[in-house]
Amino acid sequence: MFLVRGDGLKEELINFLREEEMDGYMIYADSATDSDLYYLTRFLAHDPFLYLHTLEREMVLVSTLEARRAEREASVDEIVTTERYGMRELLKSGVSRAEAYVEVVRGLLQDAFNGESGVRIAVPQNFEVYLADRLREDREIIPRISPLRAMRARKKRDEIALIIDAERRAEEALGLAEERLKEAEVRGSRLYLKGEVLTSERLRGIIDMSLLSNGYETEATIVACGTQSAEPHNIGSGPLESDKPIVIDIFPRHKTNRYHADLTRTFVLGTPEPELIEMHSAVLDAQEKAIEAIQPGVTGSEVHEIVTRVLESHGYESGDEGFIHSTGHGVGLEIHEPPSLSEGGEVLEVGNVVTVEPGLYYQKIGGVRVEDLILVTEKGSKNLTTYHKELRIEERV
Amino acid sequence: MFLVRGDGLKEELINFLREEEMDGYMIYADSATDSDLYYLTRFLAHDPFLYLHTLEREMVLVSTLEARRAEREASVDEIVTTERYGMRELLKSGVSRAEAYVEVVRGLLQDAFNGESGVRIAVPQNFEVYLADRLREDREIIPRISPLRAMRARKKRDEIALIIDAERRAEEALGLAEERLKEAEVRGSRLYLKGEVLTSERLRGIIDMSLLSNGYETEATIVACGTQSAEPHNIGSGPLESDKPIVIDIFPRHKTNRYHADLTRTFVLGTPEPELIEMHSAVLDAQEKAIEAIQPGVTGSEVHEIVTRVLESHGYESGDEGFIHSTGHGVGLEIHEPPSLSEGGEVLEVGNVVTVEPGLYYQKIGGVRVEDLILVTEKGSKNLTTYHKELRIEERV
Repeated sequence: MFLVRGDGLKEELINFLREEEMDGYMIYADSATDSDLYYLTRFLAHDPFLYLHTLEREMVLVSTLEARRAEREASVDEIVTTERYGMRELLKSGVSRAEAYVEVVRGLLQDAFNGESGVRIAVPQNFEVYLADRLREDREIIPRISPLRAMRARKKRDEIALIIDAERRAEEALGLAEERLKEAEVRGSRLYLKGEVLTSERLRGIIDMSLLSNGYETEATIVACGTQSAEPHNIGSGPLESDKPIVIDIFPRHKTNRYHADLTRTFVLGTPEPELIEMHSAVLDAQEKAIEAIQPGVTGSEVHEIVTRVLESHGYESGDEGFIHSTGHGVGLEIHEPPSLSEGGEVLEVGNVVTVEPGLYYQKIGGVRVEDLILVTEKGSKNLTTYHKELRIEERV
Repeated sequence: MFLVRGDGLKEELINFLREEEMDGYMIYADSATDSDLYYLTRFLAHDPFLYLHTLEREMVLVSTLEARRAEREASVDEIVTTERYGMRELLKSGVSRAEAYVEVVRGLLQDAFNGESGVRIAVPQNFEVYLADRLREDREIIPRISPLRAMRARKKRDEIALIIDAERRAEEALGLAEERLKEAEVRGSRLYLKGEVLTSERLRGIIDMSLLSNGYETEATIVACGTQSAEPHNIGSGPLESDKPIVIDIFPRHKTNRYHADLTRTFVLGTPEPELIEMHSAVLDAQEKAIEAIQPGVTGSEVHEIVTRVLESHGYESGDEGFIHSTGHGVGLEIHEPPSLSEGGEVLEVGNVVTVEPGLYYQKIGGVRVEDLILVTEKGSKNLTTYHKELRIEERV
C-alpha cells in the first residue's frame, strides 16, 4: 500500500541545494502533518522528527522508540537516534526538553558536516523559529520556499492511481447519500428517513461510515442545507429541508497511503427556486469552460479568470456575495496544495491534479457548488470524476 | 458541543505579557492542527490564520471566506480580514502569496500597536521562521515556551467531562473488540470470525466504526499481535493469533469538541506463555504503584521513576528491550501534551489528566501495555478508566 518513493527525488533535491548554494536541507516536523516530510521519507510518525539532506546523504533523527520502525519504513540512507547524541543524559541532568533537543541537533549537524563552520542550511518557511534561532548561533539557517511543493505538484502514475481510488470511494459515499435523500419522506418541509428526522449530521454519518469502511478518514464532510450552504466552510447541522439547496462536499484521505480526493455536488429534493436553477446552470457553464481551458502552460490564474467572467456573463458579480472563493486547488497528500486556480495561480504542468469548483453564495437563497477533480495531461486534461451533476432529486411518490 | 472559553484566560495571557515585558502574543497556524490556537479561539479552521493578543485586545486575521463564521464562532474581541489590508490587490499586482501575506501582517501590526516602533512580540517556539524573519525587519519577534501549554494542562470541569465521555466511548469500542475475540474460532493458531480470518485490520475497523458512529475520529488505532506488539507504535497488520499477546491501544478524538481519550489493554485468546503472564502482572503492579503515587506536587519524573523501579524489582531492566518508553503523558486537545510522566517530567497539578501506561517489550515474546487515564485531584487522583485488566480471554468451546 505504501508508495515507493520516486527515484528522481534525491537528484532534484541535490540540484536545488547546488542552485541555491546551500549545504543541506532540513525539516523538523511530524510526517502525519507535514506532507513534504512524508513524501520524502514515506515514514508516517505522529511525533516530530528531524530530516537532513546534505549534498551526500539523507538521514532522519528519531527516538529509540521509533528507530526500528524507521529502519524498516523510512526511505533514507541513515537512521540516527537522539540517544546517540545524548538525549537521555541531557534530560537526566535536568536540562529542559527543548534545550536538550537543540544540543542533540547541534551534535548531529556537527557530524553531518564534518565539523565545518559557516554551513548554510535551507529550511522550509514554516521551520520552527526557536530551533532556527538557536542553531543560528553556529551556522546559517535560511528559510526557502519548499522545493518539495513543486515536486509534489507533479503527480506520478502510482500517486494518480491512489487519488482516483479515493475519488471513486467519495463517489460511492455520495451515491449512498443521494439514495438516502431519494428515500426520504417530506413532512411539512422536513425530511424523514425511516420515521426519523434526516439531519445534516445523520447524512454525514452515512457518508463518513462508508468511507471509513473503505479505509478513508474524513475530517469535516460538508452537508449544508439552505442558508447554511451560503457559507462555503459551514459543515451543516440540523434537519435537512425539501426545495432548498443541499451542498455535499466530501474530501476523504486514505489512512495509510495519505492521498486525498475532493468531490462536491449540490442537490435539491423537490422543487428548487428558479434563482437556484439559474445559479446551478451558471456554475456548470463556468466549470465546463474552465475544464476546457486547462492544459499544460495555462496558468491557474487564467482558469480562475475564465470562471469569474463566465459567471459575470450570467449576471453574477463577485463581491461579498456571489463567487467568493478561488476556482480550485491541487489535491494530493494535502487537501489544499499547489497549483492554485486563483488570482496569482501558477503555470499548470503535466501531472497536476486540481479541483475545479466554481460556486455562488447568497445569504437569502443559499449556495451552489459543483466540484470535479481534473488531471492535467499532455493533451489537455482528464476529468477524474464520473458523478452526475443533476441538481434535482425527485421526491418519492 | 463547543466549549465556552474559560474566563480567566485573557487575564492569564496579559499577566504573561507583563511578566515577560512583551507587547503582544502572536500565533500563525491552523486551529485544526494547533491546539493552543483552538483553545484560545474555539474557532476550528483547516487553513492557517493569525491570532494576536496585545495588552488591550485580542484579534484574529482571516480571509473574507472565513469572516462570517469567525464572527459567529471565534471567542475574540475582533475579526479582521486580509482583504482589509490589501491581500487581493497585492496578489493582483503579481506579488507572491507569501510576500503579500507579510505585507498584510505588517499592516495589521502597524494598526494594532498604533504605529509604535520597537514593539516586542512573543510567539510560540514553533512559529514559522520565514514570517518571523520578515517581521523582524521592523520589530522584535521572540520565541517563548507557549504559556498556553501550562494553562491547557489544568483542565476545567467541562473539559474533564468531555474527556470522560471520550474514554467511555473508547471502552465501548474496546468492549466490542473483546466480544469479537471471544466469538472467534481458532483453527491452527489463526482466529476466524464468521468463517473469515480475523485480522488486525478487521478488528481495527470494528473499533473505528464504533467510535465514528459516536462522533469520534481515530488516527491510528493499534491492534498489534505477537512480535508486532513488541514495537509500541506498530499499528498491526495481518491475521491475529491465539496464545499470543494482542495489544489494543485506542485514542479517539471528538470531531467537533476536539478532546481525546486514551486506553490500552493487552489480551491473549487461549493460553499465554508463562513469561507473558509474568510481564503482565509486573506491568499491573507498576501501574498500581504509579497511580497510588499521583497527587498534586509530585513530579512526572518521580512517577516514572516508580514505574522503572517496580519493573526492575520484577527483574525487568530498561534498555533496548523491556520498558522502552515513558510512563505517560497529558491528554486533552492533543493526544500527547503536558505534563509528561517521564525523565524530566514536570510537577503535577490539580486538573491534569494523564495516562499511566507502563509496558514491556521483547522481540521474542511480544509486548504488554496497560493504560488508564488518571485525573489529578486535590486529594490525590481519580481513575477515569473503568475497563477490566484481565489478560486472558477464554476461547469459546
